[in-house]
Amino acid sequence: MNVCEIISVGTELLLGEILNTNAPYLCGALAAMGISVQRVLTVGDNPARLQEDFLAALRRSDIVLLTGGLGPTKDDLTKETVCKALGVPLVEDPAQRRAIDAFFRRRGGECGYSNYKQALVPQGGVVLYNANGTAPGCVIRHGEKLVALLPGPPGELRPMFQQALKPLLQPYAGGAIVSHHVKTVGLGESRMAELTAHLQDSENPTVAPYAKEGESYLRVSAYAATAEAAEALCAPVIKNLQSLLGDYVYAIDQSLEETLLARLREQGKTIAFAESCTGGAICAALTALPGASEVFRQGYVTYANQAKQELLGVTPNTLARFGAVSEETAIEMAEGARAGAGADLAVAVTGVAGPGQSEAKPAGLIWLAACNGKRTVTRRLDTGRNDRTYNRTAAAKAALALGIAMAAEDGGLVPA
Amino acid sequence: MNVCEIISVGTELLLGEILNTNAPYLCGALAAMGISVQRVLTVGDNPARLQEDFLAALRRSDIVLLTGGLGPTKDDLTKETVCKALGVPLVEDPAQRRAIDAFFRRRGGECGYSNYKQALVPQGGVVLYNANGTAPGCVIRHGEKLVALLPGPPGELRPMFQQALKPLLQPYAGGAIVSHHVKTVGLGESRMAELTAHLQDSENPTVAPYAKEGESYLRVSAYAATAEAAEALCAPVIKNLQSLLGDYVYAIDQSLEETLLARLREQGKTIAFAESCTGGAICAALTALPGASEVFRQGYVTYANQAKQELLGVTPNTLARFGAVSEETAIEMAEGARAGAGADLAVAVTGVAGPGQSEAKPAGLIWLAACNGKRTVTRRLDTGRNDRTYNRTAAAKAALALGIAMAAEDGGLVPA
Repeated sequence: MNVCEIISVGTELLLGEILNTNAPYLCGALAAMGISVQRVLTVGDNPARLQEDFLAALRRSDIVLLTGGLGPTKDDLTKETVCKALGVPLVEDPAQRRAIDAFFRRRGGECGYSNYKQALVPQGGVVLYNANGTAPGCVIRHGEKLVALLPGPPGELRPMFQQALKPLLQPYAGGAIVSHHVKTVGLGESRMAELTAHLQDSENPTVAPYAKEGESYLRVSAYAATAEAAEALCAPVIKNLQSLLGDYVYAIDQSLEETLLARLREQGKTIAFAESCTGGAICAALTALPGASEVFRQGYVTYANQAKQELLGVTPNTLARFGAVSEETAIEMAEGARAGAGADLAVAVTGVAGPGQSEAKPAGLIWLAACNGKRTVTRRLDTGRNDRTYNRTAAAKAALALGIAMAAEDGGLVPA
Repeated sequence: MNVCEIISVGTELLLGEILNTNAPYLCGALAAMGISVQRVLTVGDNPARLQEDFLAALRRSDIVLLTGGLGPTKDDLTKETVCKALGVPLVEDPAQRRAIDAFFRRRGGECGYSNYKQALVPQGGVVLYNANGTAPGCVIRHGEKLVALLPGPPGELRPMFQQALKPLLQPYAGGAIVSHHVKTVGLGESRMAELTAHLQDSENPTVAPYAKEGESYLRVSAYAATAEAAEALCAPVIKNLQSLLGDYVYAIDQSLEETLLARLREQGKTIAFAESCTGGAICAALTALPGASEVFRQGYVTYANQAKQELLGVTPNTLARFGAVSEETAIEMAEGARAGAGADLAVAVTGVAGPGQSEAKPAGLIWLAACNGKRTVTRRLDTGRNDRTYNRTAAAKAALALGIAMAAEDGGLVPA
């Protein structure tokens, strides 16, 4: 299998200011092509260290991908550094120069001198034109090896990778790595890992457990000459995991919101949400998916008690007796949302996200309710953490999981 | 200045399955201590490569931080690999063993054998107890150098870093790096960079331009013996940038939602949102902040036309004549949300997120409206992209920016 290293360039990455989403994107795409990414390195805008690290990566690997540092500004030095290290001169590309002029004409802006730096490309290299920005990428062949430079903004890098670089990487694609995720809710990572421990010795496919807020999953990953053969290696292991973990498995590969959307679509059902502590995050997760409008028409972000009363019909008596974070309030929120939205199902969440909390209502205490017109079910979640982001994410995931369970029940299906 | 390298361990990171948020977190915290992070490396669960990379990092650096691979499962091998490379034996820590037992008793779960692997610690090392999980971290001194191992889950790593590791790193803290961000909206990165080009030659502080969806910012970063001295270096440069960029600057350091929350709090005002294409993301961004309840009581996720009519009072005539994505609909949404929520201000967003689009209403066309009871203003955004995530993020940012402008106007203030 051909081996690749990725170098992400940018002092902003080393100062912790932005997340590097390019590296995981490229890793996923390369894995699917059967190219093994063995290292991802982040370095600053420092030409000396970049040169050293680039040459080390080039010695060890068949492919080196560099991201970032191709822009118009003075600290954008990736192209200059790599070309110097390889002894390749930079020359102006007339088509790229015209593309830069056209880009600025289209935008109605002015093209400053610094933008023309982006028209310089490595002599003899392949220019990867940028449909979404002014910095072109490029590919330089170095003996049997391939070096590619891609722009940092994800909206430029991703289409350039798919349309221009991927075809050039095809000769390096060796077989395929296929990964699937057996997704569970309601089961801790260590319990899930123990139930499946005997499968984790397997070498192809490999089986590895992971966890993030409120969800645990197992990654099943196989390598074979073709994607089909890799799939065939994964299939029996996935079956085996499903039978070991039973109803804890809510989906293979799909996220909670994707699973919910699919279940609702299958049944031609709609859902509404009433959100307090999650503050819109559940609606936002579902509507992030194309096609959400088929199953979702409206949601209520009822942060204040008054909003719960006015929009959802929660009674003042319930709020006074049990408080906003209570099973009783969650039930009235869900039923009010379902009636108000005219939806088949509704899920409501009310909880203490933190940092504010009380002894009776600690941060991490979350009540959920779901109703389908026939019955209303509730769940109590207690994360035991005073971590606002964690609690909101865990609450949103629990709400989506409850929606999946309810949608399945409603149609006589069981999850996954 | 002492130099640090970070190694994040985990095959899941190299397969592109999860974002590495630990490295940027540590980078930010170390920069603030005046410790220079020069490389961040991600490697898989491969002991041979991890050992090679660890030893190389140790040769080059004063501090090596490793994250991940400390858990109970078979592919968690960071501790074993590092200790082997350093020739340090692993011994059972009785306190850690008791902590693991207690953790599982508290959770009501069973402690399986594999969890006891986590009670093994490097002989002579400092154990960093884990208040939020079962895997302890540890610090190993190697001559003048320091090696620290931290667990992968961010909810465990962050408190462990702050409470246990940071004090041990104090002897390595050399002066301070202070960074500030001059945040702009409505100005492209290259235009912003050109307006400020002459300041980008500065070496201390450095000035560097960055961009992400709909926002551009300049990072001003200074190094000095003390944080105060570094602040003093930054201050005049920030002033200079503010006067160069004028009203495009909406805040220093704060995010859009933080700025909006602060502006509204200053004035004792409340805001409501009516969201169509953003589907709850604006409400979710604001309510992610503690204290949001002081300025936000409710929001409307009106995805379907019917919901816009029923919840916000948008007229069927407006929807029929101009369509859901129109200036007219945005205005009625904002005014309906303000009236319905009894808020001082309301901002509404309606747009085509994509992938579905039409010639008249292309993906990336977004209409925003904001009202304060005295007047209603509108904005048209056209991202020119068919990228659902980008368009939703850009729309949410534009809505927050419009809220900031409106809040400022309402109180007779100008932004920033």
